[in-house]
Amino acid sequence: MSTERLSQQIQFILEIDRLKQVLRQTKIMGGQRQENSAEHSWQLAVMALVLAEYANEPVDPAHVVKMLLVHDVIEIDAGDTWSFDDKGYLDKEERERLAAERIFSLLPADQAGPLRALWDEFEEMETPESRFANALDRLMPMLHNFHNEGGTWRRDGVTLKKVLARQSAIAKGSQALGDYSLALLEQAKKLGIAPVEQ
Amino acid sequence: MSTERLSQQIQFILEIDRLKQVLRQTKIMGGQRQENSAEHSWQLAVMALVLAEYANEPVDPAHVVKMLLVHDVIEIDAGDTWSFDDKGYLDKEERERLAAERIFSLLPADQAGPLRALWDEFEEMETPESRFANALDRLMPMLHNFHNEGGTWRRDGVTLKKVLARQSAIAKGSQALGDYSLALLEQAKKLGIAPVEQ
Repeated sequence: MSTERLSQQIQFILEIDRLKQVLRQTKIMGGQRQENSAEHSWQLAVMALVLAEYANEPVDPAHVVKMLLVHDVIEIDAGDTWSFDDKGYLDKEERERLAAERIFSLLPADQAGPLRALWDEFEEMETPESRFANALDRLMPMLHNFHNEGGTWRRDGVTLKKVLARQSAIAKGSQALGDYSLALLEQAKKLGIAPVEQ
Repeated sequence: MSTERLSQQIQFILEIDRLKQVLRQTKIMGGQRQENSAEHSWQLAVMALVLAEYANEPVDPAHVVKMLLVHDVIEIDAGDTWSFDDKGYLDKEERERLAAERIFSLLPADQAGPLRALWDEFEEMETPESRFANALDRLMPMLHNFHNEGGTWRRDGVTLKKVLARQSAIAKGSQALGDYSLALLEQAKKLGIAPVEQ
């Protein structure tokens, strides 16, 4: 056993502990507190196991899970950029690229490469697995908002148009989940908890 | 698409959100707050991807990941039983079995079975994958304690003997990680943060 190798791997595991301190805008079910990106990643990974059948193209659920497990670790350095933060999106890509360089490089090179590749794959949305993973990442906050009395939908500046722009990517990974999320918005409208229409 | 089926699956995903509110005794790195079982499950799943090479027998990392993703959901009903809570362990098995019945049954039967089976497999420790998954589940709190100035090791009633009894299962899944965790305890002793020797 190479002690140096194991030591690098343990260092990575300790480093990613910090994702538990990165807060998202979304609240957990019940609304008591903001959700963090570590527990969010866990929930999406379980979701992938349960909802894989709805992907537009056949996907390897285990691969979707792996991608979702690491898709947010870059937020340790780059922070969580809220979907409706137009300013934050201006330099999001550069911040996240630098974060990926640093964080995955903590691992031995033969592991840094493949794990980094999972993150790239998620970002590029060019494989069936990554389109499906992104669909789940966009569906989950809608579920939280719907069940938390509108959640972040009810904030200043979040319009239905912006929500639909984010939501539209769901159908690229899963038409069934895209339809489901549209039905959620319709239902939210009836309940008076939908984003404002402008 | 069966709407009833999707509705059951979404219900399960919303239900497991509650795992984010189940607190463990262990604190996150830095010691600011207690860790919850959802973020803990995420960290173990990433660990499985990174440390799979140290399993005593060849393991399918994706299978270890799946097991770790669901290994704690029963805590939603049964609570987290601290490793050193002798009284809590008396009825742990029964509480957790009832929880598994209820929670996995929220899913359509064809999914409830396999996911429940992953939990059973984890508990029984009879496959290489489950022995390795359990090794990670026992190593991680040791890492947290070591890096949090002794953490729960420094509480009343936690003796080195009890810690070693928990730690001994690590080598059953991974001799290398078992050795590493023993070395951690040795180092903790030098730093004066080890459990008391009695």
